[in-house]
Amino acid sequence: MMSTMLARESSAFRPRFSVVQVEESTDLAPRFDAAGLLTVVTTNAENGDVVMVGAMNAEALARTIETREAHYWSRSRQCLWHKGATSGLIQHVVELRIDDDQDAVWLRVKTAGVGANCHVGYRSCFYRRVDLPVDKDISATAARLVFCETEKTFDPIVVYGDAPNPTQL
Amino acid sequence: MMSTMLARESSAFRPRFSVVQVEESTDLAPRFDAAGLLTVVTTNAENGDVVMVGAMNAEALARTIETREAHYWSRSRQCLWHKGATSGLIQHVVELRIDDDQDAVWLRVKTAGVGANCHVGYRSCFYRRVDLPVDKDISATAARLVFCETEKTFDPIVVYGDAPNPTQL
Repeated sequence: MMSTMLARESSAFRPRFSVVQVEESTDLAPRFDAAGLLTVVTTNAENGDVVMVGAMNAEALARTIETREAHYWSRSRQCLWHKGATSGLIQHVVELRIDDDQDAVWLRVKTAGVGANCHVGYRSCFYRRVDLPVDKDISATAARLVFCETEKTFDPIVVYGDAPNPTQL
Repeated sequence: MMSTMLARESSAFRPRFSVVQVEESTDLAPRFDAAGLLTVVTTNAENGDVVMVGAMNAEALARTIETREAHYWSRSRQCLWHKGATSGLIQHVVELRIDDDQDAVWLRVKTAGVGANCHVGYRSCFYRRVDLPVDKDISATAARLVFCETEKTFDPIVVYGDAPNPTQL
């Protein structure tokens, strides 16, 4: 399908020619950074929770729009990443928004299967909050985390086996 | 205040020594990238909308925790950015979460004043959605944007005057 093939290049999206066009028009004219990526925020369409933050290159954005299933660029593996291809936890896209300067995308998704989105086994990658100090004179360095999800939705060992953990120190 | 001064350095946060510590413990041990930044997603605590995506350096993260008002690192101006200092639209932090590998933060905020968060004048920077094709064979390059907010909440000229627009082509 030639039209789909063309969409693999960022140049297949509309060229950016003015701030007014980028901010005020209906042109989809995304801005990819020096590495060819834009930032993606993914939320659970049912409860509004932010479930992950990722990246897309032009191909991932085009495939996401065309298939309505979330595709990312995996920075740890340096490859196109169809989320859920390994785990079955496909993210079905309900809505896709783009920000003012078109360098960030917001996906609202319904996740298949048990509904988890995090490789650690939780529904959201943001499963911990910072215990904000009531006393504003307490230093941030003393802050601790509190778990917002207390049980994992799946066992990463069962789902991913011995695949390398993407978390880097 | 010495404790606050120390928090200005990323080394003031806990050191990262293992994947288990980073993913499974209550240690706040953020990972800043080569530019000294992590990604921040900010949502409206009242309706769950993603209102902006930004960046924080160690100082911005520490100040946000200590003051409960959102501080970012402005990449366009290359300075610490207390959101709302110019416009009055301070973001009061209701909750601050961090993700599995601790390189992204999610702020849930209540925004002061008229409640806008976008320099273009809208409540959210994500004021447009992609009109997803019903026919999956339609190329992403043909996609158009649809406005989700039809009226601006404020006039950027009145609020920001002739300050340079941060949007880059």
